[in-house]
Amino acid sequence: MAEAKQAPDAYDALLDHYETVSGLGDAAGILSWDQEVMMPEGGTPARSKQKSAVSTVRHDLLTDEKVADWLDDLEDADLTDEQESVVREIRRAHERAARVPSDLVAEISEKTSEAHPKWKEAREEDDFSIFAPVLEDLIELKKEYAEHIDPDAAAYEVLFADYEPYLDLDTAERVLERLRDELVPLVEDIRESDTELADPFDSEFDVDTQEDLARDVLDALGYDWEHGRVDTAPHPFSSGTQFDARVTTRFDPEKPVDALMSTIHEFGHARYTLGLPREQYGNPLGESRDLTVHESQSRLWENHVGRSRTFWETFLPDVQERFSQVADATPEDAFEAANEVFEDNLIRVEADELTYHMHIVVRFEIERELIEGDLDVADVPEVWNDKYEQYLGIRPDTDAEGCLQDIHWSHGSFGYFPTYSLGSVLAAQIYDALEDDVGPVDEKVREGDFDVIADWLETNVHQHGARYTTPELIQKATGEEFTADYFLDYAHEKYGELYDL
Amino acid sequence: MAEAKQAPDAYDALLDHYETVSGLGDAAGILSWDQEVMMPEGGTPARSKQKSAVSTVRHDLLTDEKVADWLDDLEDADLTDEQESVVREIRRAHERAARVPSDLVAEISEKTSEAHPKWKEAREEDDFSIFAPVLEDLIELKKEYAEHIDPDAAAYEVLFADYEPYLDLDTAERVLERLRDELVPLVEDIRESDTELADPFDSEFDVDTQEDLARDVLDALGYDWEHGRVDTAPHPFSSGTQFDARVTTRFDPEKPVDALMSTIHEFGHARYTLGLPREQYGNPLGESRDLTVHESQSRLWENHVGRSRTFWETFLPDVQERFSQVADATPEDAFEAANEVFEDNLIRVEADELTYHMHIVVRFEIERELIEGDLDVADVPEVWNDKYEQYLGIRPDTDAEGCLQDIHWSHGSFGYFPTYSLGSVLAAQIYDALEDDVGPVDEKVREGDFDVIADWLETNVHQHGARYTTPELIQKATGEEFTADYFLDYAHEKYGELYDL
Repeated sequence: MAEAKQAPDAYDALLDHYETVSGLGDAAGILSWDQEVMMPEGGTPARSKQKSAVSTVRHDLLTDEKVADWLDDLEDADLTDEQESVVREIRRAHERAARVPSDLVAEISEKTSEAHPKWKEAREEDDFSIFAPVLEDLIELKKEYAEHIDPDAAAYEVLFADYEPYLDLDTAERVLERLRDELVPLVEDIRESDTELADPFDSEFDVDTQEDLARDVLDALGYDWEHGRVDTAPHPFSSGTQFDARVTTRFDPEKPVDALMSTIHEFGHARYTLGLPREQYGNPLGESRDLTVHESQSRLWENHVGRSRTFWETFLPDVQERFSQVADATPEDAFEAANEVFEDNLIRVEADELTYHMHIVVRFEIERELIEGDLDVADVPEVWNDKYEQYLGIRPDTDAEGCLQDIHWSHGSFGYFPTYSLGSVLAAQIYDALEDDVGPVDEKVREGDFDVIADWLETNVHQHGARYTTPELIQKATGEEFTADYFLDYAHEKYGELYDL
Repeated sequence: MAEAKQAPDAYDALLDHYETVSGLGDAAGILSWDQEVMMPEGGTPARSKQKSAVSTVRHDLLTDEKVADWLDDLEDADLTDEQESVVREIRRAHERAARVPSDLVAEISEKTSEAHPKWKEAREEDDFSIFAPVLEDLIELKKEYAEHIDPDAAAYEVLFADYEPYLDLDTAERVLERLRDELVPLVEDIRESDTELADPFDSEFDVDTQEDLARDVLDALGYDWEHGRVDTAPHPFSSGTQFDARVTTRFDPEKPVDALMSTIHEFGHARYTLGLPREQYGNPLGESRDLTVHESQSRLWENHVGRSRTFWETFLPDVQERFSQVADATPEDAFEAANEVFEDNLIRVEADELTYHMHIVVRFEIERELIEGDLDVADVPEVWNDKYEQYLGIRPDTDAEGCLQDIHWSHGSFGYFPTYSLGSVLAAQIYDALEDDVGPVDEKVREGDFDVIADWLETNVHQHGARYTTPELIQKATGEEFTADYFLDYAHEKYGELYDL
């Protein structure tokens, strides 16, 4: 009895303490949002110190010995399933943070501060050698970091788990290999086909009008303005909590479809966040599952909704009302424009649904070899370009358009990229389960009913927070294990039809 | 030698620790700014927890025993004058925080959370009795709080020192009594005079155009957009750091002059913040002196610049370019409109430069008696109304327009109000010293040169941060002790001339 009673005390104390940790994390999120969206440029030096103050105290609280003691007390405690999940998540966060010496954390933080401007300079100067030395240092530091967390595991595996804790790296690798093996020939077939897709959006589109349109689309998708807002930022992102989940986007006069798809993508992230249970705010049951699941939500809305024929049947009239340039376009034209497979695109963030995964595979293969010591930093540009030629049939002329295009490595993020592909793959699996459950979604979307999607996702994914591990959540939401089957079926069917293959 | 060496170690450790405390304080400032300006309404529950997390850890760090140990080590250390100032300020902050039991801090925080909606309801229902019980509780708690900080001092004195730590309450009282004794007859004379001031702004003014105008005025005053921004908020305020000091304002179609003066007022606060030394960010030498000095800066810009004849000579053409309604107005008309003494205004925030102080005197006298136990909460409305009749010659018909108009008591802020008047008084003293030093400012302002003001204030006030106590800073900047002479001379001269007395 005494034993059973002691456990819940430790549990309550742990939860109480974690609520502060969580509040600090969300406070840091607001500081970052403000920095990207609102802060005047000159504010940077103070903001860096504010963010560092918040993250330092957050780290200190998370790694506090009290936390270890409570977790020890709870080791054999008699807990409910929900409580077990809460303890599992906090334990994981605590252990990963506590195992890494503070000095190393500080060193990595300093090195990334140094790396970011070097990366920018290298990209501007189109000279990888400017970035190479600091990248080498960062790789060494991150290997050391991984070694502290789990000396028995491969370093890349440990780093990958920072972004996707529960899908193991073998699964990720299998999926990425299947994508490579099946999509490379599909893209080749598309290239060799004579089909030319329509592009009614080949002119200039006023950005203020684009913004009005984006707001109307968000409205129609059911974005809750009482708990969100949309702003522009150089790199679109979404951040916040179930009480306040914000979207940023950007507009380019020449790329109205990109802007709209990007807005819908960020809406998908925000909608996930808003679907987390409010009464669990401040503990893992009120937190989202990690990057794979998050990305599945954004991709589901972007690809399966925004890039669908039905979406354009529904929204083209709204677009035409605002832009006379597309007055003569048919929904089919617009649908084609939103799904063109680009022959010569070198840039990941501008890629279509298919070639996108090749961009990821290249990065995955390279960063894994870098971390495992099988590739020298100096050789990255050449290997990068070779792989682009091999998988995408194009070769970058410059490092700026090649291995310097992404910011991630300069942040010390290795293992992040694969979650983009895993999320897209999972989106297809979840969308299939959704249709299994509620019938064809198209008919409802045509009537402007997007709630059928949002509600199903909220019930089957969002409301669970981080209660289940990624494989458990996938099993629960879709009735089966994680698989690339649905995505590949979807890709073959959609693009086979579009390109008359 | 060993002794002398130990001191600087403790000093460095203290400074390092305090930088985190300070970063957390500024992070909390961003959370509040965001809440007032950007946050969607539904974000409140999460934001409250985030703010509470940040302020709790900040309080814990500030009251940490390590801080007490470092301060002990530094008691007899051989420090420079600047270091002495840093230690004085941190010691004061630490002691005031450490002396109050956490339970009481939490209780006050809970009680103010409860009081705020009660106050709102009471004001909406125009029924003081809704607010009275919680106000009574708050007064008791704040008396207890004061007792912990200094059991030997009068409670109101201790509370006043939360907002103005170094000007003693006797000084404040003497100044307020002089204001009352000299301004009550001056306002009576104005009422009895037959002079009617011009009011060319008696129509409707488009708020977007007002906002453009406000931005142009801020530009002309020298607001640094690299380190600031302006937004609208229901209650104008300014917040931030020397790297990022933001202004908020609000616009009413019927009150364009109010909006402009309010914008200039907040600019004055922001300009002070921006003038703090950047290299001292994160320690008291980079922090502003307290509310009296802060308010002196906002009032100087608002009253001595914005409400001056020269300002309107300079800016009226810009106003007329935007608003044809005032095409025929002369600068003298506009100057008069910006300085009308209202005969029947009951609302502090809408008061002119003279009657403003009577609004403060009423609150000062009442809150002091409440805290000292010389007045029952139940009697507040009647005493309030009597004092308005006595000092301002008008009697509120309702509590909403009377003792319920201000938010401060619902926040548990007792002792705050006097600093508004002290700041105005100090503004006149500083403005006189400025002119003593650089000659008549008018001529320069007429040429659009506001830098002469800003630069002088930066050199003589802002750059010192919190190095000097308030009386020291006043002495240093103006060459004499704090005095109401300059303000009263200014008031008699300006309003004597305006109203032909």
